[in-house]
Amino acid sequence: MNIVILGGAGFIGQKLAIKLAENGVLRGQPIQKITLCDMVEPQNQIQANFPIQFTQLEMTDETSVSAAISDDTDVIFHLASIVSGQAEADMQLGYQVNLDGMLHVLKRICQLPKPPVLVFSSSIAVYAAQTPQPIEDHFIRSPQSSYGTQKVICELLLNDYSRKGLVDGRGVRLPTITVRPGKPNAAASSFLSSIIREPLVGEKAICPVTEDYRHYFSSPRTIIKNIIHAAEIDAKDLGGDRNLMLPGISATVKDMLASLRNVAGDEVAELVEFKRDETIEKIVLTWVSDLNPERALELGFYQDESFDDFIKAHIEDELS
Amino acid sequence: MNIVILGGAGFIGQKLAIKLAENGVLRGQPIQKITLCDMVEPQNQIQANFPIQFTQLEMTDETSVSAAISDDTDVIFHLASIVSGQAEADMQLGYQVNLDGMLHVLKRICQLPKPPVLVFSSSIAVYAAQTPQPIEDHFIRSPQSSYGTQKVICELLLNDYSRKGLVDGRGVRLPTITVRPGKPNAAASSFLSSIIREPLVGEKAICPVTEDYRHYFSSPRTIIKNIIHAAEIDAKDLGGDRNLMLPGISATVKDMLASLRNVAGDEVAELVEFKRDETIEKIVLTWVSDLNPERALELGFYQDESFDDFIKAHIEDELS
Repeated sequence: MNIVILGGAGFIGQKLAIKLAENGVLRGQPIQKITLCDMVEPQNQIQANFPIQFTQLEMTDETSVSAAISDDTDVIFHLASIVSGQAEADMQLGYQVNLDGMLHVLKRICQLPKPPVLVFSSSIAVYAAQTPQPIEDHFIRSPQSSYGTQKVICELLLNDYSRKGLVDGRGVRLPTITVRPGKPNAAASSFLSSIIREPLVGEKAICPVTEDYRHYFSSPRTIIKNIIHAAEIDAKDLGGDRNLMLPGISATVKDMLASLRNVAGDEVAELVEFKRDETIEKIVLTWVSDLNPERALELGFYQDESFDDFIKAHIEDELS
Repeated sequence: MNIVILGGAGFIGQKLAIKLAENGVLRGQPIQKITLCDMVEPQNQIQANFPIQFTQLEMTDETSVSAAISDDTDVIFHLASIVSGQAEADMQLGYQVNLDGMLHVLKRICQLPKPPVLVFSSSIAVYAAQTPQPIEDHFIRSPQSSYGTQKVICELLLNDYSRKGLVDGRGVRLPTITVRPGKPNAAASSFLSSIIREPLVGEKAICPVTEDYRHYFSSPRTIIKNIIHAAEIDAKDLGGDRNLMLPGISATVKDMLASLRNVAGDEVAELVEFKRDETIEKIVLTWVSDLNPERALELGFYQDESFDDFIKAHIEDELS
């Protein structure tokens, strides 16, 4: 079992590699090698009973993508992506990395001696708030961003190439992941982690929307379990559509802060200050907040139980 | 008003050019020029009060696409496409014509002095029979063919480029067009025209499915009116999604033959012989047969009234 992780130096790529190293097996077979592919080397060394190697990767370059995926590859996790804000600001770069990059991956896969499993990380950004909610499995993906557009296109390619037997694709739409470790960034969604993360280390955080704002979340732990599950399930169970939304939790800012209060106390929760930002509000209100991931649950994907658990997991994984 | 028709020598392209020549105006402005672009020259000469010129077009060649669309273009009708069966048989060619071709068109449009109107002919092949029917405007496009996949991808690109103000796109999903003039061909859908067309000229026709088979149709006359309407409507009325399904008629083979009997008499209708073909049946049963085109009807698109009219129009337009 040889595994390639495209985007292997990122937050999810690193956590995925650590979990795979812990498990030691995937799809019932012992892991022989993991290749982490990314623009920069990962910061941490991962302990494993098998080699974990690094390959420099440039998604826009067909030759680089081809070199990253060796002939003996069994499973590819494709997590490499220009993020939402950047894809919007630089349309050409977004299409080059997120669409052309996927085409390079598929082209390379067609050259492999046997079709590998390809797990593709899509996003709930494929949906738009104008669609009736809760979003059902058979509802339209009508993205209102270049990033979301590129994700749907990749989903469609994944289906078509899988239907033709050229790849064994599985696409998973990731909810917003919270609590992300690290620092606040320029992403419109940044506050959805920082209103939990900063108070837990005694720092103030700004919430730019009202407490009624609702969104759809998954914890890092559950996302990693679900990405691995996507590689493990039987292709036959996916039927004619290889892509599905992952289960998450629909919660308001009020719910999130109640959990923070519950887990960490009043003093911590009061470090969050509300200061409306209409620019951010305008963007985040186009996102969907309520989904009904029936197919994924039937296929055994995992779901977080309460927002309290998100906070407890963040404390255990990042602050201890 | 300068108009470019990509696929201008085809059945729809020709009828569209004739209708535009008749109207003399589009979007309230007198037409100055129509450029028909296609691989081969159109068979017929079209009478008009303005020049109708021909440009040789190769959709897979960026330079050829660029040359076909002159700087003074106001409206482009993009009807050029590899058909369903061919896109399935030659996957690479399908993607080159139907996806890369669209990317060439969009790239060229970004170079024009002002964003033109782009009417794109999509197809109800973007839907799959596994989706609950009737298909509503907010239901998933989950194609089970390379052709359908390419059409959805083009729809998504049309939306994204329109949202960014680079083009004024309008995508219309065409129902199966019947009665097509001409001869039966290798397409799985061929019988849906030939069971009407052949008996009307005294020839036998084979129906490869049972009389309960249901599908979704539009007549050539209505399609042409709707393609023109797509260019005329106000972009603002389309909101965040530039693509829509066109109204059609949901009818069974039984309904179609009852109309044939009604319009042309028993003797004509009895020229249709049922001879089940499981290969054809397997393909046509993956198609959708019932749609609810609410948005299109609100936007003033036209709908055929009865299958009798399909037959009467075919007699008037093609047999007199």
